[in-house]
Amino acid sequence: MERRSFLKKVGAAALGATALSHSRKAYSAEKRFLWRMVTSWPPNFPILQTGAERLAKRVGELSGGRLMIQVYAGGELVPPLGVFDAVSQGTVECGHSASYYWAGKNPAFQWFTSIPFGLNAQGMNTWFYQGNGLKLWRELYSNFNIVPRPAGNTGVQMGGWFNKEINTIDDFKGLKMRIPGLGGKVIKKVGATVVLLPGGEIYTSLERGVIDATEWVGPAHDIRMGFHKVAKYYYGPGWHEPGSALEFIVNKKAHDALPEDLKQVLDVACAELNIQMLTEFEYENAKALKKLMNDHKVNLRHFPPQVLKKLRKVAKETIEQEAQKDKMAKKVHEDFKAFQALMAPWANISEQEYYTNII
Amino acid sequence: MERRSFLKKVGAAALGATALSHSRKAYSAEKRFLWRMVTSWPPNFPILQTGAERLAKRVGELSGGRLMIQVYAGGELVPPLGVFDAVSQGTVECGHSASYYWAGKNPAFQWFTSIPFGLNAQGMNTWFYQGNGLKLWRELYSNFNIVPRPAGNTGVQMGGWFNKEINTIDDFKGLKMRIPGLGGKVIKKVGATVVLLPGGEIYTSLERGVIDATEWVGPAHDIRMGFHKVAKYYYGPGWHEPGSALEFIVNKKAHDALPEDLKQVLDVACAELNIQMLTEFEYENAKALKKLMNDHKVNLRHFPPQVLKKLRKVAKETIEQEAQKDKMAKKVHEDFKAFQALMAPWANISEQEYYTNII
Repeated sequence: MERRSFLKKVGAAALGATALSHSRKAYSAEKRFLWRMVTSWPPNFPILQTGAERLAKRVGELSGGRLMIQVYAGGELVPPLGVFDAVSQGTVECGHSASYYWAGKNPAFQWFTSIPFGLNAQGMNTWFYQGNGLKLWRELYSNFNIVPRPAGNTGVQMGGWFNKEINTIDDFKGLKMRIPGLGGKVIKKVGATVVLLPGGEIYTSLERGVIDATEWVGPAHDIRMGFHKVAKYYYGPGWHEPGSALEFIVNKKAHDALPEDLKQVLDVACAELNIQMLTEFEYENAKALKKLMNDHKVNLRHFPPQVLKKLRKVAKETIEQEAQKDKMAKKVHEDFKAFQALMAPWANISEQEYYTNII
Repeated sequence: MERRSFLKKVGAAALGATALSHSRKAYSAEKRFLWRMVTSWPPNFPILQTGAERLAKRVGELSGGRLMIQVYAGGELVPPLGVFDAVSQGTVECGHSASYYWAGKNPAFQWFTSIPFGLNAQGMNTWFYQGNGLKLWRELYSNFNIVPRPAGNTGVQMGGWFNKEINTIDDFKGLKMRIPGLGGKVIKKVGATVVLLPGGEIYTSLERGVIDATEWVGPAHDIRMGFHKVAKYYYGPGWHEPGSALEFIVNKKAHDALPEDLKQVLDVACAELNIQMLTEFEYENAKALKKLMNDHKVNLRHFPPQVLKKLRKVAKETIEQEAQKDKMAKKVHEDFKAFQALMAPWANISEQEYYTNII
């Protein structure tokens, strides 16, 4: 959106809010904040960019126009992977992204999005809101002048698109796959060649056999990439990202300048986005999977349980190694591991039973 | 809480909010609302009553003291099961409860809390926010001058405490069990005797053999009832309530009187409570289950898959019969069924895999 057209909308929204609450005069006495939010998502990117925009709109409404946030998609103001630094340095006030993109700064960042064989969305949210998750996240980010909040979750992702069958763990040997992060480190250990490619080059690389496989997100986003036209099999589940949390990050100085009630507005608007985005992912994924199966006759495969078992073992080793790289990573890892151990027996007789014998 | 002490707190909260946003004068010009919320929960009842109180507090903060809600536990102002009528008639402005308590008015009410072998929390929320769930709920409640919002979820409940083993479906024959609602109708069909008892009489009835079994909620609440002292087996999962949604209901006239921004405050505060309450249930259930197992050596049992399969079949018939009783119930049922069918294949390769092979 152009700045001029944004300001026009902002003006209208603020006017709307004040008129509706019969308080134009009242609000005019308030201190106002005009923030910029940068994101890691392409313009109009479904669920993620649209979610970030919905967050900004909600904050504007709830604050009666006192905190207006203009949203810039990835590349519009800073590069998609420049979000963290821009917020940290105060170039912009806030951003929407995913913490594992910043793993180069500190391996600890990875636990706050998703780790292979880690927690699903319900588990991540329980860790954030009830366990020590958010506390540890804030501790880590305070070193970078950033205040984080959970703000969305992708739910369980898909394993990816393959042109080779995966029947045993040995089928990963020599497999050329585009899969970044910890997932890549895991399959490298079982003999795969990890290829890193920008989003725009994946389709042709898959088509030309430069890669044998790629992961992306889930059905809703994958179908837009057209991978079903150039890959034989669609494998699930996304063991490497069982519930990726998104983040809303605010520059500490900008955050400190807010009155208490506007901080609370950010709390509730992020909580609402958190639950809404997950359900949007769920719904859109279900619809897209149906379309992939019915209209495009996609060959849907489950990784064999024995393959997942082996990947799980290798992932565990990989994560232990990551945790040893840094003191804070170790602290986060130990807490995460203890939390998983606490929750597992309960999950076993509740949600696991639900998905196995009830649904 | 006494009214005097409530008003004192309200005053302090409002003052706090206005002082923090430098707007005492500004807010004083606003129209203010003082509402009463009645609930179906005992005073201080963990997670549910405390959640309702947190909702009221949050609304007060977010509105800068313009919408203050005083919370009355069940029986303090109206009986626990008088919440719906009190809100419908405008005796009070709002309430926190569960829609299936009002099934006597119309069988359709049951789908908005939970039905046997229905949706879990993630599914209910997806149905509400992305499917037609909330739309249908509002349509149904509009006949009673009520505007509903989802406001919390118990997560998967437990199957209950038993003094007889359940190895086959025939073990339900002659079993005297306290289990209200549709769950009761289902086990009655497989030969059980359904006993209805108020909460305060369950423990001694179980102790004296008046009943052989009872369901309650989940580990966090069950442990407080002490059932582990008088029952041999703790069975899961709660097939009859796989994800019970709670409701925040507002009298339509009171709702209409709110300016648009205060309606939005209710939206976000309820969304926040919705996700927070579910994670609180998850966390407290996990901790209580651990305690029941370690300290009280509870004999934890899974209903055999064949028993669940049979119960599922009977539940399906029972629900079809319920749906035939009323036009709106049929409409809701058809939508719910179609939604379940849409979501199932996606759940099969995502969350089901997560709980089976990833966690």
